[in-house]
Amino acid sequence: MIDEERKKYKPTIPKDLINLSAVSFAKSDPTSCMGDQEQIQSQFSSLFGEPIIKISSDTQKSDSISMKIGVVFSGGQASGGHNVICGLFDAIGEMNPKSELFGFIGGPSGIVENQYKKLEKEDVDFVRNMGGFDLIGSGRTKIETDDQLKSSLETAKKLKLDAIIVIGGDDSNTNAAFLAQYFLDNGCTTSVIGVPKTIDGDLRNDQVEISFGFDTACKCYSEMISNIERDAISAKKYYHFIKLMGRSASHIALECALNTHPNFTVIGEEVKEKKMTLDQIVSDICDMIVKRSEMDHNFGVVLIPEGLIEFIPEMEVLIGELNSILAKNPTDPISDLSSEAKKTFQSIPKSIQDQLLLDRDPHGNVQVSHISTEKLISQSVKEKLKQWEGYKGKFSPVEHFFGYEGRAAFPSNFDATYCYALGRVAALLAKKKLTGYMALVKNLTKKSVEWVPCGVPIVSMMNMEIRKGKSKPVIRKSLVDLNSKSFKTFANSREEWMFEPCYNYVGSIQYFGPESVTDQIPKIVQLEG
Amino acid sequence: MIDEERKKYKPTIPKDLINLSAVSFAKSDPTSCMGDQEQIQSQFSSLFGEPIIKISSDTQKSDSISMKIGVVFSGGQASGGHNVICGLFDAIGEMNPKSELFGFIGGPSGIVENQYKKLEKEDVDFVRNMGGFDLIGSGRTKIETDDQLKSSLETAKKLKLDAIIVIGGDDSNTNAAFLAQYFLDNGCTTSVIGVPKTIDGDLRNDQVEISFGFDTACKCYSEMISNIERDAISAKKYYHFIKLMGRSASHIALECALNTHPNFTVIGEEVKEKKMTLDQIVSDICDMIVKRSEMDHNFGVVLIPEGLIEFIPEMEVLIGELNSILAKNPTDPISDLSSEAKKTFQSIPKSIQDQLLLDRDPHGNVQVSHISTEKLISQSVKEKLKQWEGYKGKFSPVEHFFGYEGRAAFPSNFDATYCYALGRVAALLAKKKLTGYMALVKNLTKKSVEWVPCGVPIVSMMNMEIRKGKSKPVIRKSLVDLNSKSFKTFANSREEWMFEPCYNYVGSIQYFGPESVTDQIPKIVQLEG
Repeated sequence: MIDEERKKYKPTIPKDLINLSAVSFAKSDPTSCMGDQEQIQSQFSSLFGEPIIKISSDTQKSDSISMKIGVVFSGGQASGGHNVICGLFDAIGEMNPKSELFGFIGGPSGIVENQYKKLEKEDVDFVRNMGGFDLIGSGRTKIETDDQLKSSLETAKKLKLDAIIVIGGDDSNTNAAFLAQYFLDNGCTTSVIGVPKTIDGDLRNDQVEISFGFDTACKCYSEMISNIERDAISAKKYYHFIKLMGRSASHIALECALNTHPNFTVIGEEVKEKKMTLDQIVSDICDMIVKRSEMDHNFGVVLIPEGLIEFIPEMEVLIGELNSILAKNPTDPISDLSSEAKKTFQSIPKSIQDQLLLDRDPHGNVQVSHISTEKLISQSVKEKLKQWEGYKGKFSPVEHFFGYEGRAAFPSNFDATYCYALGRVAALLAKKKLTGYMALVKNLTKKSVEWVPCGVPIVSMMNMEIRKGKSKPVIRKSLVDLNSKSFKTFANSREEWMFEPCYNYVGSIQYFGPESVTDQIPKIVQLEG
Repeated sequence: MIDEERKKYKPTIPKDLINLSAVSFAKSDPTSCMGDQEQIQSQFSSLFGEPIIKISSDTQKSDSISMKIGVVFSGGQASGGHNVICGLFDAIGEMNPKSELFGFIGGPSGIVENQYKKLEKEDVDFVRNMGGFDLIGSGRTKIETDDQLKSSLETAKKLKLDAIIVIGGDDSNTNAAFLAQYFLDNGCTTSVIGVPKTIDGDLRNDQVEISFGFDTACKCYSEMISNIERDAISAKKYYHFIKLMGRSASHIALECALNTHPNFTVIGEEVKEKKMTLDQIVSDICDMIVKRSEMDHNFGVVLIPEGLIEFIPEMEVLIGELNSILAKNPTDPISDLSSEAKKTFQSIPKSIQDQLLLDRDPHGNVQVSHISTEKLISQSVKEKLKQWEGYKGKFSPVEHFFGYEGRAAFPSNFDATYCYALGRVAALLAKKKLTGYMALVKNLTKKSVEWVPCGVPIVSMMNMEIRKGKSKPVIRKSLVDLNSKSFKTFANSREEWMFEPCYNYVGSIQYFGPESVTDQIPKIVQLEG
């Protein structure tokens, strides 16, 4: 069966990570942060300014040290997480066979409550190159309160941990830095090291070329998108509106567009930059539909990022107003809207109006993530086409949402190899007693043997941002940069993709076979690299 | 790229189909039909009772005959269709290099309107082992009226066709038999030969072991289902309700269940057989949720066949009543329902009530295929759990529908090889001047080299059924047989799948690598074989 065959895959280890007992650690100049230096420095007095560490193979052998390491998954699934654990387990075992690895159960709450499982070779072997986080589970608890921080410190002391490895996204890595600072402030020698995980691709900057999981997720979605494209061009009768996971940024939509060449892709960041209205987006899609119809092409594929709503300025205003009005439980919330927001509200289809008014979270807020943006767009297009003078073509929309399908697949060769290396880097950073660092591997456009391992201070990626009304230090989220090569490549091709037969059929992720098929790295990494 | 690599795949040819110039055709005893012999015989006076033809390799060489063949796709996409054309093209070319293949454009309307494309080697090479029907497109026109039949005959004469190959499902093959009979009645020597296509798996009987496309579609859906399973068991917080394409029968849901071991699978045929109410189905799911919650498992995966609604007797009654009431455009349609139907209507969630009342086809009928059965079930479960005394667990449902994602993927090795062989069989039946036959390959549980090629009279699969109020000869649809080995295997395992950690992760379709991974045939074929 496939899982047994897949478990046999041996990730190629970057040459600087092969012999872990003979490596050197080169320090850069002191780092700073992405902004708001003074405030960041005051919150991370011990961690601010630490250097970037570049790891290279060396001739000199170091001592064989046994370590006790804790590892935790934080947040949503991303393919490759298990391989981080495999890389870590193998690495500390190679350093010293007496080393021990503890997996905290169910996410960061496992640290707080000291719920763990000692991981043995058979546990780890069972999940080699496997998807999901099911070996130890994950969770969304944030270690923030004094009580939580104190309990975490107690856990670290009880287990005599040399390090805790936090596998998570931008917020989880921010929290890892807070925990590292707290441990230092309280005389605890346990290191805290982060590993960059998120399918969304928004944990990305000069240091982080890509987070793990993005590649596998985008390949899964691209498989389905291109299957739908081939169905569309064969049947010639449906317009498919496909919403793709990724709320804060449109990296997934961009990557999938570069893979599959759909007829239309909405990029949230462009909408925001150009201050586009919902009506403009809908009109642009209608323009395309009308022109394609003149070519007798009454079919197509449109990609929509999950977070689109929040990128449309007028919708942001509407949702903001609704949130404050609905909190008061008025009998007629619409009458309390500003005239501009009212106009926006009235312009959207009834079913989406209902979602805005009725689907609220426990705090009474509109549940933005529940809004069927794909239906909002397809229904608005349908309405507009009805009013479009002279349009005689057909329009049959079909909506899809792809998210959970791509978070727990068997990792692609790229994610499997990348994660295994990340686990080994984390082990080395722990051995070097570095804390508040993120384990990284760079140079990803090269063959994996040439990849460059390093550790980067998490604090160096931070700036101050408003979260829940308060200014907080956070890792700056990466948005799609309209000046990047990947966006420009997309922008230069999209007109052609609209009207020419350009669909690109990528097939399903291949784990065996020719390297040209199994070892492609993400397009956005290729293009920027 | 993957499409170039995939095009290189060479399907293994069954040994009896290797040398097409040296084959023998063995006839069975005369066949009958599946029921209503008298009526079927009167409608198909020339085709009724023809024998099954078994094709074997022979030592004696036959003449080299050049042929002109037309080929058409009818109905929805199914992976492997292009390979039927490749097999056909290669076969008639091997028989005589002067042979010609014409592809009718956009489905059966291409025959009626004589819209075709002469297929050359580069056209065919371009789609080897590729998904979709985009080489020539498909359509749902039925050749039924006298005018359509007459025009089709004119096309056959104009192009001097030796045969028309109809690649389609049960209805398309029924229509192929009508066309064959019409040609015979009108002195036209063009053969009409069917090829069994449909992802639904409902064109299946003693002769047809499986239709092509079923394997690839189920493998695509199973990939996504098992990715979701792994996400569910990692996150431990969502119940996923997954609707699967397949309106008339639940073969796809059964196959996917056998592949992925979800916690609950509804089989429409069982619901009908046991006369289950919607409330019973929902209660059964709630029972499971409550028990899993006691084990602290507030997550799971539930599969639902697209056609479920029509298998629930009370829903069938409700929809029937609504269709006749709504035709009269009453102001209050609900008041006209029988008390039983009214009770059913009131038991279903508001959003589904709206779909029943508002979403109607041009004839005013309820659009059963538009009903979000996955939401009907998940919302009804949510409602019931609220009323369930003492239930304190969480319940967060997520709904999915998989259909179009699986119809046009690169065909699995099984579908690629099966279809290529079907194309070669069709060529041989045409050469033998057989008409009203379906091209088939049997013995599919054996290695493909051992597969047995044959031709079976389409009429032998027919009985009379009511369609649109009239009794008509049709190929009998195959439903899930509750006494079959595949259903029993499922039924014997489902209790365990409900509560034990049994998820089976199948990964994505692999086109390269070990045979154990690339060459699995459908589970329901394995089990019945």
